[in-house]
Amino acid sequence: MSHPTHASLRDLEHHGAFIERHIGPDDAEIARMLHTIGHDSLESMTDAIVPGSIKSTAPLALPDAITEEDALARIRAIADRNQVLRSFIGQGYYGTFTPNVILRNILENPAWYTAYTPYQAEISQGRMEALINFQTLCADLTGMDIANASLLDEATAAAEAMTLARRSARAKGNVVVVFGDAHPQTIEVMRTRAEPLGLVIKLADSAEAWDAAIAADDYFAALIQYPASSGWLMDWSEETAKIHAKNALAIFATDLLALTLLKTPGEMGADIVIGNSQRFGVPFGFGGPHAAFMACRDAYKRSMPGRLIGVSVDAQGNTAYRLTLQTREQHIRREKATSNICTAQVLLAVMASMYAVYHGPEGLVRIASRVARLTAILKAGLEQLGFTTTHHDSAFDTLSLKTGDRTDAIAARAVALGANLRTAWGEYLCISLDETTTRADIELLWRIFGGDDASLPSIDALDASAPSLIPETLQRTSPFLTHPVFNSHHSEHEMLRYMRALADKDLAMDRTMIPLGSCTMKLNATAEMIPITWPEFANIHPFAPAAQTQGYQELITGLEAQLAEITGYDAVSLQPNSGAQGEYAGLLAIRAYHQSRGEGHRDICLIPESAHGTNPASAHLCGMKVVVTKCDANGNVDVEDIRAQAGKHSANLAAIMLTYPSTHGVFEEDVVAICDAVHQHGGQVYTDGANMNALVGVAKPGKWGSDVSHLNLHKTFCIPHGGGGPGVGPCAVKSHLAPFLPSTNPLLPLAGEGAQRADEGAPEGRVGMVSAASFGSASILPISWMYITLMGQQGLRKATQVALLNANYVARRLEAHYPTLYTGRNGLVAHECILDLRPLKDSTGISAEDVAKRLIDFGFHAPTLSFPVSGTLMVEPTESESQGELDRFIDAMIQIRDEIRAIENGQLDREDNPLKNAPHTATAVTASEWTHAYPRELAAFPLASLKLQKYWPPVARVDNVYGDKNIMCACIPVDAYKDDVEA
Amino acid sequence: MSHPTHASLRDLEHHGAFIERHIGPDDAEIARMLHTIGHDSLESMTDAIVPGSIKSTAPLALPDAITEEDALARIRAIADRNQVLRSFIGQGYYGTFTPNVILRNILENPAWYTAYTPYQAEISQGRMEALINFQTLCADLTGMDIANASLLDEATAAAEAMTLARRSARAKGNVVVVFGDAHPQTIEVMRTRAEPLGLVIKLADSAEAWDAAIAADDYFAALIQYPASSGWLMDWSEETAKIHAKNALAIFATDLLALTLLKTPGEMGADIVIGNSQRFGVPFGFGGPHAAFMACRDAYKRSMPGRLIGVSVDAQGNTAYRLTLQTREQHIRREKATSNICTAQVLLAVMASMYAVYHGPEGLVRIASRVARLTAILKAGLEQLGFTTTHHDSAFDTLSLKTGDRTDAIAARAVALGANLRTAWGEYLCISLDETTTRADIELLWRIFGGDDASLPSIDALDASAPSLIPETLQRTSPFLTHPVFNSHHSEHEMLRYMRALADKDLAMDRTMIPLGSCTMKLNATAEMIPITWPEFANIHPFAPAAQTQGYQELITGLEAQLAEITGYDAVSLQPNSGAQGEYAGLLAIRAYHQSRGEGHRDICLIPESAHGTNPASAHLCGMKVVVTKCDANGNVDVEDIRAQAGKHSANLAAIMLTYPSTHGVFEEDVVAICDAVHQHGGQVYTDGANMNALVGVAKPGKWGSDVSHLNLHKTFCIPHGGGGPGVGPCAVKSHLAPFLPSTNPLLPLAGEGAQRADEGAPEGRVGMVSAASFGSASILPISWMYITLMGQQGLRKATQVALLNANYVARRLEAHYPTLYTGRNGLVAHECILDLRPLKDSTGISAEDVAKRLIDFGFHAPTLSFPVSGTLMVEPTESESQGELDRFIDAMIQIRDEIRAIENGQLDREDNPLKNAPHTATAVTASEWTHAYPRELAAFPLASLKLQKYWPPVARVDNVYGDKNIMCACIPVDAYKDDVEA
Repeated sequence: MSHPTHASLRDLEHHGAFIERHIGPDDAEIARMLHTIGHDSLESMTDAIVPGSIKSTAPLALPDAITEEDALARIRAIADRNQVLRSFIGQGYYGTFTPNVILRNILENPAWYTAYTPYQAEISQGRMEALINFQTLCADLTGMDIANASLLDEATAAAEAMTLARRSARAKGNVVVVFGDAHPQTIEVMRTRAEPLGLVIKLADSAEAWDAAIAADDYFAALIQYPASSGWLMDWSEETAKIHAKNALAIFATDLLALTLLKTPGEMGADIVIGNSQRFGVPFGFGGPHAAFMACRDAYKRSMPGRLIGVSVDAQGNTAYRLTLQTREQHIRREKATSNICTAQVLLAVMASMYAVYHGPEGLVRIASRVARLTAILKAGLEQLGFTTTHHDSAFDTLSLKTGDRTDAIAARAVALGANLRTAWGEYLCISLDETTTRADIELLWRIFGGDDASLPSIDALDASAPSLIPETLQRTSPFLTHPVFNSHHSEHEMLRYMRALADKDLAMDRTMIPLGSCTMKLNATAEMIPITWPEFANIHPFAPAAQTQGYQELITGLEAQLAEITGYDAVSLQPNSGAQGEYAGLLAIRAYHQSRGEGHRDICLIPESAHGTNPASAHLCGMKVVVTKCDANGNVDVEDIRAQAGKHSANLAAIMLTYPSTHGVFEEDVVAICDAVHQHGGQVYTDGANMNALVGVAKPGKWGSDVSHLNLHKTFCIPHGGGGPGVGPCAVKSHLAPFLPSTNPLLPLAGEGAQRADEGAPEGRVGMVSAASFGSASILPISWMYITLMGQQGLRKATQVALLNANYVARRLEAHYPTLYTGRNGLVAHECILDLRPLKDSTGISAEDVAKRLIDFGFHAPTLSFPVSGTLMVEPTESESQGELDRFIDAMIQIRDEIRAIENGQLDREDNPLKNAPHTATAVTASEWTHAYPRELAAFPLASLKLQKYWPPVARVDNVYGDKNIMCACIPVDAYKDDVEA
Repeated sequence: MSHPTHASLRDLEHHGAFIERHIGPDDAEIARMLHTIGHDSLESMTDAIVPGSIKSTAPLALPDAITEEDALARIRAIADRNQVLRSFIGQGYYGTFTPNVILRNILENPAWYTAYTPYQAEISQGRMEALINFQTLCADLTGMDIANASLLDEATAAAEAMTLARRSARAKGNVVVVFGDAHPQTIEVMRTRAEPLGLVIKLADSAEAWDAAIAADDYFAALIQYPASSGWLMDWSEETAKIHAKNALAIFATDLLALTLLKTPGEMGADIVIGNSQRFGVPFGFGGPHAAFMACRDAYKRSMPGRLIGVSVDAQGNTAYRLTLQTREQHIRREKATSNICTAQVLLAVMASMYAVYHGPEGLVRIASRVARLTAILKAGLEQLGFTTTHHDSAFDTLSLKTGDRTDAIAARAVALGANLRTAWGEYLCISLDETTTRADIELLWRIFGGDDASLPSIDALDASAPSLIPETLQRTSPFLTHPVFNSHHSEHEMLRYMRALADKDLAMDRTMIPLGSCTMKLNATAEMIPITWPEFANIHPFAPAAQTQGYQELITGLEAQLAEITGYDAVSLQPNSGAQGEYAGLLAIRAYHQSRGEGHRDICLIPESAHGTNPASAHLCGMKVVVTKCDANGNVDVEDIRAQAGKHSANLAAIMLTYPSTHGVFEEDVVAICDAVHQHGGQVYTDGANMNALVGVAKPGKWGSDVSHLNLHKTFCIPHGGGGPGVGPCAVKSHLAPFLPSTNPLLPLAGEGAQRADEGAPEGRVGMVSAASFGSASILPISWMYITLMGQQGLRKATQVALLNANYVARRLEAHYPTLYTGRNGLVAHECILDLRPLKDSTGISAEDVAKRLIDFGFHAPTLSFPVSGTLMVEPTESESQGELDRFIDAMIQIRDEIRAIENGQLDREDNPLKNAPHTATAVTASEWTHAYPRELAAFPLASLKLQKYWPPVARVDNVYGDKNIMCACIPVDAYKDDVEA
């Protein structure tokens, strides 16, 4: 051992300590792995992989690495610049208590937050059960047949409902009627989404306007907010009947907590219901992330966007969950898709579902009833103080007061007394109460309105006298959440054990690498996660006055600058709350740019055939026409075909969408030439940022000729996948596109403290908002800020190099067993490699899926299956995996190859072999009867090391066909389990 | 479902929500369970169980229950009254960074903190691996043969070393020489412990005094602090040779971080080495908890106090860990024991061991070297500023300066500038640096000493010129932590997965009830745990000035008052950091009380034969003679025998030690009469608080005649067991004993800000300190404060009642299968029941241990085995378990009884049956060869419900005899595992 007692202080300080924590292999391992791939140094390897034409020559202009303690101190100071006031703003976001047992054991637990989207059903049963609880929750409360899990936010859910309605309604018009008293951000996002699709938003901002709009024949859907944004309630049954009479669909935007007390949208005839589950235990987070939802009638389920968990059976006939109907939308529809949704908000949907499991129906009703009672008391007290609430005498949690020219003064007085109110329509104030509201809050509100000298009413006296604000006819009578899961886990021990039991069914990164090509499942370091649950980040309402959000603004500005430097672009928007949203925002910017130059006719988007399905879907949503370009035999985009197509469509060329390095895992040589060619024909270059992990510190798309990219902070920049969301998809652009980034709320101003007025759409030539909140999923931005700050310029570059090294090491060590399909310069791959299993299928009948399922027996999550090439596995190890973990994976893959060889040799049966029967459950392997043609040990412990640590899948291979045929998307009747265990 | 929309606000507020979270059964379950035991209400049941003579007639004078949010807000306000300054105090406590991944995944993870002491080896392999890492860490760094895991604090470890030396040294004297420059709190606790045992502390507070003391013939041990408390270093080899020449033992108190750079005590001839591992990632916590350790030469291992993890083999011949040599000390030695140690500091030892795993030897050396370098720079700079450090030119992390009459002014200036220094010996200031020290800190220190106008030295310049303060001859040359476990898990992913893999091997309360009689494994609610990691509680040095610890003082005063009200006593000391320490403090109080009345001759302590082994051990440590009294056929203490013995020993009667309800799980009727009898003969009544969970809100020992009790906050008051510690054992007394509670630091004043002087012992007639810090494990006191505050008077009483109900429900439902050995009034038990399995042993050869091990196959931690009656299982379900969980346990027990019946019937073989072979590992049940006389399914899935959730033990039954014969207590060579998996 070295004895650095004489080392200098500077060396001993070791500011780069985090780099070693984040990067899996240590220097000795790096040296060994370099040797394996035939290189002396990371630099020589990088030179061999990255084309000189794009390689950065200067280090990133970012500070050096700092320690976890220093970074936490720095972000603590930023957090302290936010001010947490009592929020009565409402408008779709409400105070809530995250149950502590859920906070610690879900949101702060890597078993939940490091999990991947449940594509591999067998290792995802736990989170799928949580998600089916979410679906049941949403369907039950809305009174609808089926619900998904989940959507990005309420506003985008409304936009999705609009497009679902367009493809489902019999009415032919292109108009969507929108109830004027809907949340302004919902209207805004619907506008943004409608326009490129040729749809028209008709805002009905008075009763007369509504009646007229509904009586017209030009609309295919109408959106109702119930309860209204300003708080009042009515029975919309007659209105939905009128809508249906026009063959249009009725879309309800609603509030789940209110629905525990109110007649449901389903009972009023709703066709589609959307909303946000935020107030079910998910903090404000300055706007996100939270899980929105969509529920609909059974008739529309096959068109519903977003993820849907369904019930199926496994190979042993036992009940098992799976993602159902996954082959719809962009996965196969590509440019025909009318939604580009990919990421969901799984972690937040899990939290919301657990909140319902924890409280149960009676607990939820109690919470809602308390809110309603306090609202009634507040209203009665305000009346005693001389303030009358407007519009109606009905309310659940929100009151509106016409305060005229006193509006600003009262709002300012509220802030001075530590509270935020909502100012609306110039001369109104709205007050929303929530789960966290106390008696002291009611008295504070009275004091705000009544003045310092007002004699305050008695809460208990008013409680005795104030009538309920929920009209009798609107009181809910239908049962909900009757399933045992919502009625069993109410003690903390039961709750804790339920969550642990579910987590234990799943494989996440706290137990194994997840080598998913194109998904970049890297370390989500604890130090990065710690700030997000600090109250100063968690408890800020998205519409809090700017003076109170200085910390967030510093964080956001800082992160934008970091990302601009890393990508070589000039401006960044953090608003898009998924990668697909970022992609959409990027294309909207290109579209608006062309329009601003009088070239609005440019609508051709070139997309190579190897592209991810969201690319064509996003292009379609932006009103572009997709022209697919070819790839050559090496999997590279065909430059000549691009040149030809660009030329052919020169007059109308809008853009090309590239992925770089390619989805085939290769640094293509000709990217600069392609950019030139497209520019020459007046097009813009969009570079998909999915593979940014191969570029950070090594090359900058903004410098080699690309005009715009989206990034995936949940891939490259360490936001955990959360089991399938949250995501953050910033859009980064060159300066000429900067004016066309999504509006950061010209209408719901962050910077000013002024009134929020009903939306009139983005200013001429600007792009509207694409998400409900100006900064999308703001509360998780600290994760990426911390990552970049911790790694510093040297760490970020080294991470990229080790990501390249790890991928090449895997490719090299496996080449004798599974050839890598595509390589680039010098026979090297980028940060991922595609293992070609198609020849094995031909020779043995073993498919890539069989190998993926067999990996579960070894305790691994499979690599990406059959994307981008069918019959292959795409492996992306990332820089965070040590050589030891890579070798463990390689050993498993080699053992599997040996099993396939045994089939080739006839030593194993072609049908009855451990691959076809994988994964093997404990009940199967321990059954007295063992009929297979291979021994039990080979089934369960194919490598000796598994005896020391073994993951047992809770179900055998899940039957996909059965699940799609028999769609069942709510909690399983308890009897089903009984049948399983007695089977 | 009820619709409480018209309920009153007061009902809806539901301040008692937490009561329902803490108590497992809901009201419907309570009603059903009451029906099973034949009662209508909890009140009627309580009346039937609790003797009228002791039953409380008034509710507890405590506030009502409040919600988690309100309680967290209240304790947040308390925390905010603590002030966190930079600490340079040292004196055994140093700043440290808890690695974030360890903070979240150990300290904040219920899988670790809710685990029990690893008596059941098969379900504790994970934490035992962590503890054997701790032992290896301590043995390697000290250069000793063997180390334990762990002791309560450095000072009590020194006291334990003293008694170990007394029973091991060949020298006959009764004197312990103590080096004067040892930590004052160490000296103080040694004094407290020495006096009742007739040992004499000789403090050698000058070189001359040392030389003279070592040259004398009256001592059996000498304690050396290395590095010295004031910082200097020397090679003690010659001194230990002198000590050995007198047949005495050399005890070293040392610092683990320093030893990464220094020649080891082992190399200097130490016989016993003790110290604290706090600075290995465990925060100050205002004094605790942290894990102390003891290491010694191989010769003394069988006498070593505390827990020792050893390596053994399991029934399949695989390597397995177990608690080794557990049958020594108080477990069998009882009043012959010279240590009453029971609880360890497992959770903190795990954290410290993980800190070493995370950093590895090179990382630790780097941290230590940085500290040493900064110390050298600091010293050089202070010299430039005109301050000379005293004594010696050697140091690791601590410098002492003779500041004379400027001492107080400089200390005050430090506080004003945000830092605490240590004032010592009236006119000295000491400065200790640590892992957290920065360049800014060094400059701050220079500014403190140099004044505002001083021109500060250059750190880099001094770094180049300042010589090392570690003499070359003292530099460490021996390797340490060479085992792969300390050299493999340095990336965060590897570390995270290592911790998860270990946690998954173990069963803790996040997966199952742990029905341990006398251990009260109840819910450790998340809301209770949250405050302990707040910096305002975690980062306070135990000797911080009182002005900075106002929050702690409020918390402590508040908790003392809560506990006094609950127990009916008048005063409480929170200093004892384990139950046994509390017991010891209680007996010391009795002893001092008798002495104060001129009755110091009273030394007879009556102890019923059913008592816990710590009772006689503590009595012995207090210099009392134990007289054992009998129990009657019903298991109750024999009142007549007590009367007789009290009469017989009337002149010398000191005390009786009772447990109430009895260790037999019964509310005995005669406790008041016993108290009277003992008082009549001049004795005091000590009531062991182990079973306080049956009493809270129902009866108060302080009111029925008891004079003193200890409590176990880690049983009744929700501090988690942490896998075997931390514990807190407050001592509660009636007013006449209050003056004799342990000193809360007359010497290291909390209340004053004055100097700390070398200890001269407690003032005449007072009892000295029993723990190193005034308030023991202060940082976990928020847990109990939160519990009491959350539950309120009504919740605490209901918890007790449900604890009684749950125990009686289990006893009643199992009575046809396993009779309950002892019952009290009306055939009911208290909060636990002893299931008698002895007849089954006679009829079938199945032992209670076989049943305990078989329960593992059902996913349960066994009840308490063979205590207090051999051949029985004692079940204490606690109030936190729902009826569902109890039924799951009962079903398992009934199934096991059916299996035993099958043996009785001959349907199962007497030797080859699932009980004798339990627990069954996955490798055993999946092996191709299955030779047992019963099917695999019966081995692994004896109940169908296990197919849905199955815990697989990582090892088969562990061989105890082998382990005690072949003592091996360090990390296993890697080859051993290889053999296992290849076996």
